[in-house]
Amino acid sequence: MKHNRTEGKIESASDLAAKMFDDIYQLSQDKAGVSRPAFSAMESETLDYLAAQARAEGLCVSEDAGKNLWFCVPEHIDTPTYTVIGSHVDSVPMGGNYDGLAGVIAGLMVLIEARRGHRHLNKAVKVLAMRGEESAWFGACYLGSKMLTGSLPESEFNAAHKGDGRALHSHLTELGIDTAPIGAQKPIYDLSRIDAYLELHIEQGPLLVERNLPAAVVTGIRGNFRYRDIHCIGQAGHSGAVPRAYRHDPVLAFAELMHRLDSTWQHLLNTGKDLVLTSGVVGTDPNSHAISRIPDEISFSLDVRSQDADTLEQMRDYLKDEMNDIARSRGVTFDAGAQVSVAPALMDATVVKDLAQVMDQVTGEAFKMASGGGHDAAVFAQAGVPSGMIFVRNRNGSHNPDEAMDIADFMVGVDILSTYMETAS
Amino acid sequence: MKHNRTEGKIESASDLAAKMFDDIYQLSQDKAGVSRPAFSAMESETLDYLAAQARAEGLCVSEDAGKNLWFCVPEHIDTPTYTVIGSHVDSVPMGGNYDGLAGVIAGLMVLIEARRGHRHLNKAVKVLAMRGEESAWFGACYLGSKMLTGSLPESEFNAAHKGDGRALHSHLTELGIDTAPIGAQKPIYDLSRIDAYLELHIEQGPLLVERNLPAAVVTGIRGNFRYRDIHCIGQAGHSGAVPRAYRHDPVLAFAELMHRLDSTWQHLLNTGKDLVLTSGVVGTDPNSHAISRIPDEISFSLDVRSQDADTLEQMRDYLKDEMNDIARSRGVTFDAGAQVSVAPALMDATVVKDLAQVMDQVTGEAFKMASGGGHDAAVFAQAGVPSGMIFVRNRNGSHNPDEAMDIADFMVGVDILSTYMETAS
Repeated sequence: MKHNRTEGKIESASDLAAKMFDDIYQLSQDKAGVSRPAFSAMESETLDYLAAQARAEGLCVSEDAGKNLWFCVPEHIDTPTYTVIGSHVDSVPMGGNYDGLAGVIAGLMVLIEARRGHRHLNKAVKVLAMRGEESAWFGACYLGSKMLTGSLPESEFNAAHKGDGRALHSHLTELGIDTAPIGAQKPIYDLSRIDAYLELHIEQGPLLVERNLPAAVVTGIRGNFRYRDIHCIGQAGHSGAVPRAYRHDPVLAFAELMHRLDSTWQHLLNTGKDLVLTSGVVGTDPNSHAISRIPDEISFSLDVRSQDADTLEQMRDYLKDEMNDIARSRGVTFDAGAQVSVAPALMDATVVKDLAQVMDQVTGEAFKMASGGGHDAAVFAQAGVPSGMIFVRNRNGSHNPDEAMDIADFMVGVDILSTYMETAS
Repeated sequence: MKHNRTEGKIESASDLAAKMFDDIYQLSQDKAGVSRPAFSAMESETLDYLAAQARAEGLCVSEDAGKNLWFCVPEHIDTPTYTVIGSHVDSVPMGGNYDGLAGVIAGLMVLIEARRGHRHLNKAVKVLAMRGEESAWFGACYLGSKMLTGSLPESEFNAAHKGDGRALHSHLTELGIDTAPIGAQKPIYDLSRIDAYLELHIEQGPLLVERNLPAAVVTGIRGNFRYRDIHCIGQAGHSGAVPRAYRHDPVLAFAELMHRLDSTWQHLLNTGKDLVLTSGVVGTDPNSHAISRIPDEISFSLDVRSQDADTLEQMRDYLKDEMNDIARSRGVTFDAGAQVSVAPALMDATVVKDLAQVMDQVTGEAFKMASGGGHDAAVFAQAGVPSGMIFVRNRNGSHNPDEAMDIADFMVGVDILSTYMETAS
């Protein structure tokens, strides 16, 4: 079925949302899934489509200095301060249609439902459709929100596009964006006008599916520390001829480390802490390993995340202690290499409390959870804007064509946002 | 210094042994270490050199149907039964000079010292220099001793040479060996004439170096079971977004398995069992793994060895139970794939006791240990010949150019063999 906005209004909010997702899917379809590169013509076309939809519903549309779009109902056009409902329109290459886009369409549905007179907005709200959130294109994430908040590092300003190799600032200039303030790390938006930042996003894990819940209030966005390539170095030997007491087996040392980290992880969860940890890349050396040879080393990655900075610090110390202890007892060496880290971003306590109260009202059950993936909301939170997020149930994770969000669940998320704006004071 | 046997006798047994090792090293030197391929012209040249040395010392030399060489003092030429001191002369490609060759030269030194009147042989002994023990050439090991004992499987009879691709039987024919009985798995030597089989070999692990002992009596040759490629299959996910309770992380499952096996290993050692275990090849899938992705699978090898068949059986059951238990608790699957196994070969209890008594007499301390690597002695033991082995201290393992055996330690091994023959009844 082809929807055509010029032929007449779609009355059901749910059908209208479905149509917008569908149209943008068609627009940005790739060999698999969709591709809406950051700061690309496709991204602009997507924004143009959204602007046309919004205007057809009688909403006001404007552009900021970063070529992001802002939407509001006519009565809020000149309001000095407002709540922002924001998200991004870009996607990863051959990604899913919902990561990012769901948050923008959710905001538009809140405005459309208000404009249609179905819902009331107790205070001013503007919807922000951002560019450039995905790291897949320039190797760094949250570019659009970092530009707005004046927090784009010089390295990212100069980062090369993974396709054409040209710097981000060159792509920005091509779009007609004045890069002078961005390069000088000056905010290109007056953040003092934003009293709160809200973002709806599909959940990127299985928790809501497993718990059979349509949505959740996000308590914080997990920070992390990561080691890309830890080497555990032992001593090679004949698999049959070296007795246990004289082995320095790096594989068993790695196994012991992971087993200890796993136990501590469970213990921290039992005491109410937030934590996930993953060793995603593991391997002995293909150039020297053999079935009948004790390997001389194993290398592995480690990714540890928590929404609580103290828990990350505790795990960092614990990891160091465990590596030292196992190194001593097994006669191996751990060479951890460089550590990279991202600070966690807690959502605003009052916003979380109010969203949870609204969710309870809407669904009969308030459910709160941490976000494992990063989002623009973390950038606003770190810039001092009280922020909150709503997750919507989704199967198969994100960043892949199999993202699966039901429109019914999405509309629960929209309902939570609408009710929040209806009751906001 | 160039030694030349035709110019005059070397009086010191130790110097003579060193000269023979040195000459054969020169003869078979490769880019690194030595290369004496199984059933090759180089192997024949090595045997020719040994025959010449033996004849120069007044020993008798003969050839069997497998073109292996037999040496004895003239008075034992027609003795109906005898003890055999045997080993092999082939090496792995670019290997060390001592693996195999030390056992042959040790036997010759026992005969030479007796022939020179320095030692007495209380019973008949023949020294056997075998061909084709190393699996590096045809992919299967103990070919020479399997041919003698009629236990060469058809698959190995037809096995292709790793260099020229020609079958083993073709290489045998080229050497002038009648392959008909070998192909029919008939013994080509009358085993009833052999009352015991003894073999001296360098230790392939670090135990004697660590214990500061020159030699050891081997109690048995470890058998093994091996899995080349076990797959532990879980479920991929976002490293930040999937809570612990909903993970099916194959890396943590692997770590738990190895940790449990390691604990059980230590427990079995504490109760006096013989065991070694190794996971030498470990890796997540390079085509899909990433730091921020819970991997969907990890693959790993497992090599478990013991000189005790019951212990291997126990570990096989234990491994299966642990994989089932971890699969259940973590929601992962273990696909173990094909298992290959080699039965352990215990050395003869009386031979071990007698060798230990002799070692105590020679060195002041009898030390017994299991052999991790396989040896021709296992083939003779499995053919029903009471067998025994002596290990000589060696650094850096075997099958590499860094094998490091001191001649002084070697001569302790020779002394144990000579004393054994002197006191044998």
